[in-house]
Amino acid sequence: MTGTRRVAVAADSPFGLGNLPYGVFAPPGGEYRIGVRYGDDVVDLAVLLDDSTFVRSTLNDFLARGPRHWREVRERVRELLTGPLPETAVHPVADVRLKLPVAVGDYVDFYASIDHATNLGRLLRPDGDPLLPNWRHLPVGYHGRAGTVVVSGTDVIRPRGQLRTASGTPEFGPTRRLDIEAEVGFVVGVGSEPGRPIRTEEFPVHVFGVALVNDWSARDIQAWEYQPLGPFLGKSFATSLSAWVTPLAALTEARIPLPGQDPEPLPYLRERDAWGLDIDLTVRWNGVPVAHPPYRRMYWSPAQMLAHLTANGASVRPGDLYASGTVSGPERDQRGSLMELSWGGTEPVEVNGERRAFLEDGDEVVLTATAPGADGARIALGEVAGRVRPAR
Amino acid sequence: MTGTRRVAVAADSPFGLGNLPYGVFAPPGGEYRIGVRYGDDVVDLAVLLDDSTFVRSTLNDFLARGPRHWREVRERVRELLTGPLPETAVHPVADVRLKLPVAVGDYVDFYASIDHATNLGRLLRPDGDPLLPNWRHLPVGYHGRAGTVVVSGTDVIRPRGQLRTASGTPEFGPTRRLDIEAEVGFVVGVGSEPGRPIRTEEFPVHVFGVALVNDWSARDIQAWEYQPLGPFLGKSFATSLSAWVTPLAALTEARIPLPGQDPEPLPYLRERDAWGLDIDLTVRWNGVPVAHPPYRRMYWSPAQMLAHLTANGASVRPGDLYASGTVSGPERDQRGSLMELSWGGTEPVEVNGERRAFLEDGDEVVLTATAPGADGARIALGEVAGRVRPAR
Repeated sequence: MTGTRRVAVAADSPFGLGNLPYGVFAPPGGEYRIGVRYGDDVVDLAVLLDDSTFVRSTLNDFLARGPRHWREVRERVRELLTGPLPETAVHPVADVRLKLPVAVGDYVDFYASIDHATNLGRLLRPDGDPLLPNWRHLPVGYHGRAGTVVVSGTDVIRPRGQLRTASGTPEFGPTRRLDIEAEVGFVVGVGSEPGRPIRTEEFPVHVFGVALVNDWSARDIQAWEYQPLGPFLGKSFATSLSAWVTPLAALTEARIPLPGQDPEPLPYLRERDAWGLDIDLTVRWNGVPVAHPPYRRMYWSPAQMLAHLTANGASVRPGDLYASGTVSGPERDQRGSLMELSWGGTEPVEVNGERRAFLEDGDEVVLTATAPGADGARIALGEVAGRVRPAR
Repeated sequence: MTGTRRVAVAADSPFGLGNLPYGVFAPPGGEYRIGVRYGDDVVDLAVLLDDSTFVRSTLNDFLARGPRHWREVRERVRELLTGPLPETAVHPVADVRLKLPVAVGDYVDFYASIDHATNLGRLLRPDGDPLLPNWRHLPVGYHGRAGTVVVSGTDVIRPRGQLRTASGTPEFGPTRRLDIEAEVGFVVGVGSEPGRPIRTEEFPVHVFGVALVNDWSARDIQAWEYQPLGPFLGKSFATSLSAWVTPLAALTEARIPLPGQDPEPLPYLRERDAWGLDIDLTVRWNGVPVAHPPYRRMYWSPAQMLAHLTANGASVRPGDLYASGTVSGPERDQRGSLMELSWGGTEPVEVNGERRAFLEDGDEVVLTATAPGADGARIALGEVAGRVRPAR
């Protein structure tokens, strides 16, 4: 027989009853299982709900069950959390091991911030129109590497690669332009059939939730390799995902209209109900908050991204991940990449008294985010942290 | 008690003892299991070897066990096939259902034919150097969509997408430039650790085998979307993979030196032992052989592709697939895509008396290939077939 206890979480906690993100954790000496974060604890759903389907090392099976099941579980969990909990169901977050919450099928990265795309255009093509002709017509995106998506807290080893030199002959060595991209990721729950595009209004039927993403980037490797088939090794060494996936159900109060699209998109990209999200991100570089990217400024919504991704009949699977691309706003301190913050390295950023452009070995980057919750409180997305280790 | 029988396969059969490719099949009314193709039969390895680890719906677990196990199984199977076989182990290929042989983790597509890259460069950038500056320094590649890799025989639904118009405003509709890409794919068996690149000489330790790939492409969707992040919806609707994976062990006689690389590649891309492969492909369009792409002409070897893919520390997993990109030779009838065969649609190809540039609904494309085997015989790779269905 085990005892019970009450867990007191303040109404305005960023991980209160209005949030309850899902993750996969192992208690000390125990096996992996699904839990929700509640305050500074993880609540074991297998114990709380007496349901062994939550003894899993990924969320995928749970996600595949669909929105009705997600809603029922969420309602039942919220109900139970207000009463006494079995002691064996509750573990301090600090005591558990957290793993990658989903087995990622395909990972797609978009380029949905007009401020980011404009900044990159200005930096890379100073003489042309910063936005390419297709940009306002479709959410530009590409496939990233699913097998190197890692959970928050995983060290990132500085990648080596081919770097252009003044002579025109490349050399091989550690990147000198290691960067971050602060992004919001969307986790697919319910898959789709080949040949059957997902309409924008079906977004909440297929997408379970939201998690922060750091799409680490080696700008020098990328600059040399990316013509004509896009980013490859400049991105594929590591992409960090939060250990916690916040369900869309927790983000009801964060929904806002998009800032506006001109020209009006083609019919398959139009939204009946807007899926803009009022999420505020913060980028901390060795503890210093260097940027506050505003997700509300994104040009394309996640519902439009999914509609586009499947418009050609491509199917999605439970556990697929797609991310927004770097979130940037119009102000300098709203830029979600170091490439933009340091303007291609020409305008260093002050970090703890040092002037810095890109990441050095030992640096740590932590992304956090909050959004409006119920009753005027703010909820937090799970953080994404990573530290740079030297190239081997 | 079941009886035994001998299976007579001619010494010069393309699926004789020197080949023995692996696939996943289900006999009528039975469950999926691993088999080898032998002549016109499939031999059930679970029955033949009395080993339930071959009752699997993918090859992934078998692949993960590594080259020593692959070799032992191959030797034992070759030995047993020359004697009487349990009747329950043998099924005519025509009677079984074949499925996608591997659960594909990540799918990477390269661009390793200098003739293909040159042709595309001439078509898309008629005024510039057909090869971009990076092309001779690294195997250019990008990530494709793993979730839409389908087994040979799966119909391909004509994709819809955004198409550029004369007005500059795109329209949405079925592709008018549906194309194929005849490629050779490489299936990863043994995974690697993050941060630990695979050296060229480790290629046969990590890669299990070879299979034909048709990387269906919508050229008009691709042309509008691909700047600056590369191909996305123009490729992601379907990629067809052969049902049969031919082990590298069957291709010993097909190994040849590369045609030559200038400039000499950087040290991490140099090969001690060449992994050029003398594979002859044939493209049949509605039964008409329209091209004979020669794999021996490829500029980059599969060992170099894998070394490059992991040079930044990216890890690979059992079941990962990477493909060569379109195989083309210097002659017109050696071009592995319709874009090249019809020179961007301007020089139609004659197919059964019709002048054709791209694929129409109802068209069928079949890729086949042979390579030198032991004792002067030729072995076949498993075919890749697909028929185009109208857009929904």
